[in-house]
Amino acid sequence: QQQQRYQNKCQIQNLKALEPQQRIESEAGITELWDQNEEELQCANVAVLRHRIQQKGLLVPAYTNVPELVYVVQGRGIHGIVLPGCVETFQSEQSQSQQSRPERRSQDQHQKVRQVREGDIIALPTGVSHWFYNNGQSQLVLVALIDVGNSANQLDRNFRKFFLAGSPQQEFQGSSQSRSRSQKERESRGGNIFSGFDEQLLAEAFNVNPELIRRIQRQETERGIIVRVQEDLQVLSPQRQEEEQEYQERERWGSRDNGLEETLCTLKLRHNINDPSRADVYNPRAGRVTSVNSLNLPILQHLQLAAEKGALYRNAILAPHWNLNAHSIVYITRGSGRIQIVSESGDAVFNDQVQEGQLVVVPQNFAVVKRASSQGLEWISFKTSGFAMTNQLVGRNSMFRGLPEDVIVNSFQVSREDARRLKYNRQELTVFSPGSTSQRE
Amino acid sequence: QQQQRYQNKCQIQNLKALEPQQRIESEAGITELWDQNEEELQCANVAVLRHRIQQKGLLVPAYTNVPELVYVVQGRGIHGIVLPGCVETFQSEQSQSQQSRPERRSQDQHQKVRQVREGDIIALPTGVSHWFYNNGQSQLVLVALIDVGNSANQLDRNFRKFFLAGSPQQEFQGSSQSRSRSQKERESRGGNIFSGFDEQLLAEAFNVNPELIRRIQRQETERGIIVRVQEDLQVLSPQRQEEEQEYQERERWGSRDNGLEETLCTLKLRHNINDPSRADVYNPRAGRVTSVNSLNLPILQHLQLAAEKGALYRNAILAPHWNLNAHSIVYITRGSGRIQIVSESGDAVFNDQVQEGQLVVVPQNFAVVKRASSQGLEWISFKTSGFAMTNQLVGRNSMFRGLPEDVIVNSFQVSREDARRLKYNRQELTVFSPGSTSQRE
Amino acid sequence: QQQQRYQNKCQIQNLKALEPQQRIESEAGITELWDQNEEELQCANVAVLRHRIQQKGLLVPAYTNVPELVYVVQGRGIHGIVLPGCVETFQSEQSQSQQSRPERRSQDQHQKVRQVREGDIIALPTGVSHWFYNNGQSQLVLVALIDVGNSANQLDRNFRKFFLAGSPQQEFQGSSQSRSRSQKERESRGGNIFSGFDEQLLAEAFNVNPELIRRIQRQETERGIIVRVQEDLQVLSPQRQEEEQEYQERERWGSRDNGLEETLCTLKLRHNINDPSRADVYNPRAGRVTSVNSLNLPILQHLQLAAEKGALYRNAILAPHWNLNAHSIVYITRGSGRIQIVSESGDAVFNDQVQEGQLVVVPQNFAVVKRASSQGLEWISFKTSGFAMTNQLVGRNSMFRGLPEDVIVNSFQVSREDARRLKYNRQELTVFSPGSTSQRE
Repeated sequence: QQQQRYQNKCQIQNLKALEPQQRIESEAGITELWDQNEEELQCANVAVLRHRIQQKGLLVPAYTNVPELVYVVQGRGIHGIVLPGCVETFQSEQSQSQQSRPERRSQDQHQKVRQVREGDIIALPTGVSHWFYNNGQSQLVLVALIDVGNSANQLDRNFRKFFLAGSPQQEFQGSSQSRSRSQKERESRGGNIFSGFDEQLLAEAFNVNPELIRRIQRQETERGIIVRVQEDLQVLSPQRQEEEQEYQERERWGSRDNGLEETLCTLKLRHNINDPSRADVYNPRAGRVTSVNSLNLPILQHLQLAAEKGALYRNAILAPHWNLNAHSIVYITRGSGRIQIVSESGDAVFNDQVQEGQLVVVPQNFAVVKRASSQGLEWISFKTSGFAMTNQLVGRNSMFRGLPEDVIVNSFQVSREDARRLKYNRQELTVFSPGSTSQRE
Repeated sequence: QQQQRYQNKCQIQNLKALEPQQRIESEAGITELWDQNEEELQCANVAVLRHRIQQKGLLVPAYTNVPELVYVVQGRGIHGIVLPGCVETFQSEQSQSQQSRPERRSQDQHQKVRQVREGDIIALPTGVSHWFYNNGQSQLVLVALIDVGNSANQLDRNFRKFFLAGSPQQEFQGSSQSRSRSQKERESRGGNIFSGFDEQLLAEAFNVNPELIRRIQRQETERGIIVRVQEDLQVLSPQRQEEEQEYQERERWGSRDNGLEETLCTLKLRHNINDPSRADVYNPRAGRVTSVNSLNLPILQHLQLAAEKGALYRNAILAPHWNLNAHSIVYITRGSGRIQIVSESGDAVFNDQVQEGQLVVVPQNFAVVKRASSQGLEWISFKTSGFAMTNQLVGRNSMFRGLPEDVIVNSFQVSREDARRLKYNRQELTVFSPGSTSQRE
Repeated sequence: QQQQRYQNKCQIQNLKALEPQQRIESEAGITELWDQNEEELQCANVAVLRHRIQQKGLLVPAYTNVPELVYVVQGRGIHGIVLPGCVETFQSEQSQSQQSRPERRSQDQHQKVRQVREGDIIALPTGVSHWFYNNGQSQLVLVALIDVGNSANQLDRNFRKFFLAGSPQQEFQGSSQSRSRSQKERESRGGNIFSGFDEQLLAEAFNVNPELIRRIQRQETERGIIVRVQEDLQVLSPQRQEEEQEYQERERWGSRDNGLEETLCTLKLRHNINDPSRADVYNPRAGRVTSVNSLNLPILQHLQLAAEKGALYRNAILAPHWNLNAHSIVYITRGSGRIQIVSESGDAVFNDQVQEGQLVVVPQNFAVVKRASSQGLEWISFKTSGFAMTNQLVGRNSMFRGLPEDVIVNSFQVSREDARRLKYNRQELTVFSPGSTSQRE
């Protein structure tokens, strides 16, 4: 599975640490958008946004014309998607009839609902409608990578968010050109996708009264896309622990996917990558790195996306490296540090301090190094490939280790002793403990 | 298998029902071309044309730089393709020697020839030469979707048709720019691909007399690309029934494809989707829908194309829905009706009557509803994905069914009773019977 | 696996035989670049370069943002790549301890090193660092196809070469726009990718003295990218014969790849296609054709590239044909001849003599014929598909053979006898012996 996202020209000579430029208020939360016209986001062909959902806030159902990868920066909540052709597997009837406990919502049945919490990556396939609800004790903060350049996008390079409910603000509604055109018209309308259909035709299709259709077409403008739930949201949802056991059991019994269409309904779409016990690389003196890709979350092969969670302790260094087959869009989740990025011309295109809440784009193949400040540094990197690979310049399993000594000696015109120093002086892998002021040897 | 077809900018705010703009006459038929510069065809990155082949008309061998999906709107005929590396499996010698029956064409052998009839979808891979012959009692009418944006196209966004014979009209010969350039030159030439080669060199390659090469290079201009066959065309061709039995048998014995290259020669390229007995969804009060995709015609996985045949009885409704992973290019084959299409901004970008012979483009992810007039409505939809998926807004297996009641209540600010009406009032699936004037409940 | 490389507009009306336009001198060799702005290279979305490496010349480690296919035109050498995540499998310790032979380099270990020789195709995946060393008795001449339009390229249409060592000349450093900008700055720098990083940070990451970092950052400008090795380069490398046996054994025992990531470390990346005994098509009176594609070099499925080596004896003809699913970039390795290329409009877009060292682009689907001069003609064709297919117009297994006689008779308005001449007069396959002056029959 392949993708193609190139632009006519990418003048990447000065990258910046980016912060969101637009702030959109809804009834029960705020959505912040990074400016899609930034050169680096254009070149990487991605968009990024952040939702801050208040307690009892509901991000209404919507779908996007490209895949999204959502990272839960903070809080906990409930998340649902509706997959076409899948049955409603969460049913209240059976369990209630067994318990013969009368309940208000006894007849409901719906598709799978998942619990999400800080550190979760959630994969949202193209065109699949999804919603989030904050049932936790704090804000629920989500950062979403929207992969505009994904091969699943068959239209233009704009991301298009289709809201099925609520009253989406203009910022979500199409490209800037179209926005101006019918601005007035739309403001008076409401703007979810039902609003464009003929009231009578929808009433007939739904077999309901036209007044009800009018209600869903014209929502109160102040509500926006994150609405307040009066009582707590009642949905059927097993405890997370049960849910995960069930998944692991299925995995153990080896139900390998045999074609997307057969297993889409039961496919795992969530993976926690902040749990230290799942770290792929761990160095008690330096930090840890955890990846999610098509191997541990198979849907990512289809989405052509992956992610990496990193945590560097104070002053530690992430090995200088390059991404072979993906861009890396780095969102700082905690702390601060320094990032340097070098282009093919040997120029530093980025060399700056970064801190919580900022975004840095590392273009494919560009060399990059990260160093934590004394506060430490944590980040989530979204990668535009289902199996993103990096090559490290130094350390165990690095480029220098793979080169014969004589190639190092001659390529760099250094002595044999220096070649060995370059090759072996750093014995750690990926996450490096801070250097002492005196160099070895 | 993925594709990427996006444009720099798609201003889809006013879609139109499109009719062909160019009419090209040949000796034994007419070819009509839709205007490739229409915004919606540009955005969907497809071209569409229609051949009307008279009785005993032969559409001469040609190949295209992208895959095509052909639907037989009317009539019956014979169709052949020449696949590289496949042997000539239709041989007259053996059977005739057994029967010892003298015959004019006793020595011919050629690749597989297929019978086609109304309702057939025929898949034509990129660069594979093909021909059609009308051996029926009426016109043979073919509508072809030419998937310009397909990943198999490695050049620009023009579709290029390479005619191996006949005298192709200028309209088929390259992009508009190149057309003007050497217009005169080419008119005098003839223009099939042999005409560009050196006569002597071809004569040597074919090991024939240069006069014969000159004959095939310079065809009579009036013949065009659909030529009249004087006697009936004699080709070896089993009866359709035998042919299909043979295919089913091969299927039953489980010859699964193990790589395109091994089985391309025996791959099925035709599937009838107008046969009511094959309907995927059937509602005796509303109509039926039949799909062909990579599951029932595996070559479509390679072509990244699929199709859907729909028939709505009088006043019936096709469930409002969106296409998750494909554009849908809808050609009306019979009757008339109304189509509404809604964009991500909640605007109706199309809301019009449609009738037989018209074409409507439904962009990926845009919401759409169809309603038959009192005459009923039939269409063929070409989809730009090998496994096109839709999500319906209402009815069984719809988005509303998948949502928990409480999410509906809060997303739309409706009562619990109204949420249940939205969720359950329409019990049908995909094709909805016309509404009564009085709403239920 | 699919790719997409189309341009907005390709005005291919006059193709040229191209020669390199830039000549870049390094200490121990020359690199010649074809002009990427040539219309045909732009349309095919590829770049081409040629390295001439002197004896004891080392092409320093570098990686490219797209896959490359390298053909060894002349000479022999050693070649290494460093694959991320693969261990250093070439170790000197064991063998030396067994032999208890003291040696200068007794502690080295590194990744696999391969011997290369004339006729080898070497596949270089995106972002993987590689180096070449000439240990032969003559120049080592490499021609590299750089597949800019490959789906592995996620940035713009420029090829970007990241040099890990040496002092790369400006011509390699990014697109023309960026070149002018910081020209001065970079000239003073050195320009391999280490030069852009902070000296102190690198010193800490490598755990070496900052002076050593400064050395590798600032290389002598005169050395360029091909440097002279004073003594002979000492690397561990088995004899080619052993190496190939080992590979064949692994193949025999059926270790089929089960996912790229698992076997990337042991994947075969080299294949000789100049060995006459491996010819796919051989005609003692006309010549031979040998292909390498995803079937005999599986990495090519991932790279979406293939190659064909052809040799025509004096005055022989390569069957007129078209490439179904790929461009063909033809580099003449020996001799001279005539090539004709015909577009969809029936125009000859190329009709010229070609000779050793020239490059001709045959766009996808365009018809082409080659004819050797009295000196014979040899070429290497790079193809932009992992399984490139051609369809021949004439000869055994050709388009004419696949067509029923009656279709030929009517499509071309020729007699039945002439149809048979077109179909059967040339009995050879692919490579045709020169014609006699008198035609048969």
